Amino acid sequence: MKFDIMRDRLLDGLNDVMKAVSSKTTIPILTGIKIDVSTDGMTLTGSDADITIQTSIPVEENGEQLIHVTEPGSIVLQAKMFNEIVRKLPTNDVEIEVADHFQTRIRSGKSDFHLIGLDAAEYPMLPEISPDRQITLPADLLKSVIRETVFAVSTSESRPVLTGVKWQIKEDGLVCVATDSHRLARRKVTLEHLPTEEANVVIPGKSLTELSKILSDSTTPVDIFMTNQQVLFKTSDVLFFSRLLEGNYPDTSRLIPEEYNTTVTINGKSLLQAIDRASLLAREDRNNVVRFSTLTDNNIEISSNSPEIGKVEEEIQVESLEGEELRISFSAKYMMDALKAIDGQEVVIQFTGAMRPFIIRSVHDDAILQLILPVRTY
Amino acid sequence: MKFDIMRDRLLDGLNDVMKAVSSKTTIPILTGIKIDVSTDGMTLTGSDADITIQTSIPVEENGEQLIHVTEPGSIVLQAKMFNEIVRKLPTNDVEIEVADHFQTRIRSGKSDFHLIGLDAAEYPMLPEISPDRQITLPADLLKSVIRETVFAVSTSESRPVLTGVKWQIKEDGLVCVATDSHRLARRKVTLEHLPTEEANVVIPGKSLTELSKILSDSTTPVDIFMTNQQVLFKTSDVLFFSRLLEGNYPDTSRLIPEEYNTTVTINGKSLLQAIDRASLLAREDRNNVVRFSTLTDNNIEISSNSPEIGKVEEEIQVESLEGEELRISFSAKYMMDALKAIDGQEVVIQFTGAMRPFIIRSVHDDAILQLILPVRTY
Repeated sequence: MKFDIMRDRLLDGLNDVMKAVSSKTTIPILTGIKIDVSTDGMTLTGSDADITIQTSIPVEENGEQLIHVTEPGSIVLQAKMFNEIVRKLPTNDVEIEVADHFQTRIRSGKSDFHLIGLDAAEYPMLPEISPDRQITLPADLLKSVIRETVFAVSTSESRPVLTGVKWQIKEDGLVCVATDSHRLARRKVTLEHLPTEEANVVIPGKSLTELSKILSDSTTPVDIFMTNQQVLFKTSDVLFFSRLLEGNYPDTSRLIPEEYNTTVTINGKSLLQAIDRASLLAREDRNNVVRFSTLTDNNIEISSNSPEIGKVEEEIQVESLEGEELRISFSAKYMMDALKAIDGQEVVIQFTGAMRPFIIRSVHDDAILQLILPVRTY
Repeated sequence: MKFDIMRDRLLDGLNDVMKAVSSKTTIPILTGIKIDVSTDGMTLTGSDADITIQTSIPVEENGEQLIHVTEPGSIVLQAKMFNEIVRKLPTNDVEIEVADHFQTRIRSGKSDFHLIGLDAAEYPMLPEISPDRQITLPADLLKSVIRETVFAVSTSESRPVLTGVKWQIKEDGLVCVATDSHRLARRKVTLEHLPTEEANVVIPGKSLTELSKILSDSTTPVDIFMTNQQVLFKTSDVLFFSRLLEGNYPDTSRLIPEEYNTTVTINGKSLLQAIDRASLLAREDRNNVVRFSTLTDNNIEISSNSPEIGKVEEEIQVESLEGEELRISFSAKYMMDALKAIDGQEVVIQFTGAMRPFIIRSVHDDAILQLILPVRTY
């Protein structure tokens, strides 16, 4: 194998695939990045066995020569070292040449590196994906869907299936649900084209977070393919594979109350800031619980109390306040996460009682629903 | 005590004094910040027993009222909590009122915090400083002097006095020296006004690093007062006290060679980048040693070798190369630290032999001298 490539483009590609490489892997070949060079261009592959990212760089783009291929071939190079070397090379021209025994020479300007590579034939194959269960979302919408749900997954491995987000495709579109059993985030998306088959998969939260870092903030379409064990997110130049979580995801539909006794419409940003302040004292007690109380004259109060440090109270004027009086306590962190996910000026909060789950959604949009279980404090 | 203050100014002041507060302190009152309010204004004091920082905010500045004092007084408030509360208050007007039993109320907009304070009378007094051994340096020069020396202090507590920088004032000015016994950094500064008495103190490296963060990049004068146990750096609005290190600082003058057999003049930036690249492989062997070899035709070579990973070689054209041939090995980190401290385009490196310390300095300036001990590799 022998080729020349523009350093900037190689760095961009490495930047994507490095997100899949983990220093903690127990599979030696996965500490490396696979480089495949053909007369069409170069592909880079990185993987931690859960996530696999592949990116392609063409030989030529918009009339500009990016790669000059002298001899096609494949090699696996130690990921962290290769990435750092490329980052620090003195010129924008990089020559990579592989000789016998995977001896790899990287040259740029007067810098001359010799690395010992690994056999590309040892690198795991990519899974095969069928197009039966495929949907397409714009990249920016996909990023929003992830942002609005993934924070609510469980961080505990005691029920592994809850560390993922459930993606369900039915006749009315895509529904994404995440819950750690103390709170729940749900996002509905209407699809223009429904796939041939219904689907019901649980995607690891960590995979979605990493995917989000690679996606652009544009409307570029992302094709999403689901199988029983893998999901593939495909953009024009990146393939992002993730394994799926096994196990039965709990039925969360019964968690959402059907009747509400107190309904508050409030400026989301004012509420978020007041809870952020109240949580300063709540945090010291380690439970991070704040209290929400209805007052008269369209006011509510956010308060918290830490016997050793002090207390804080703050009144907020609400847009409207209907139904029964209420005093309820909940995790400041869960409420702030939910309000940030909704990201709307006006939010509606609907309560059934001090001991029952309550929901938060935007005034203007039913697509996002956040649910929080209260904390018993008195 | 009762007063109103502009939140922005209070935050600026807190930002300075918080640098002295450590969460690791074993003295309970030092987890707090002391607030003193008089009819002149407010002072804030933070300390970790080694470093003490005091900053003042006047009642009025450039015709603008910053503080409105209703009743003077003093209180100590838990530093981290007070700082975070002030940072998150909803308006730029902050009212602070202390009632009986150090009960402190902080109000801004509709936010109402109650904190339990501590008795300001329990807070340690500031040390007394005499003006006999005082010098003055512009803030930007003082920052440079710190940057050029402090990186070379020892990080090991086995010889505590080496964790500080020696500051010596004699008839020819100020000389600052730092060494960890493997390398040495020396900076000379000519003083316009010499103090009445000579001085010889060792200032903890950590104190100088913290001081550096507070100093501006302007030529504003900083008055420096030295006593036997403390040094005070005084700007217009900040007092920065540091304790001094006890013990005899070693005589380092004999370390610097008097004769040189090989002299190289080289572009500092090219050398720094080549060593940075070579250290990528050197680091993997944990000793981080690179080799420097003279070649013919005004070239030198930087190389390193890691048997399991590979090797790297790079030639650099030098400005001039005089004296004997040389192959020498040294720590890439020490060399990079020294070159960054000199920060000059052209540097001179003078060697006595492969087993002897060598020095690095700027072509244009004798004020900074860096010395490194080589590593024996063959």
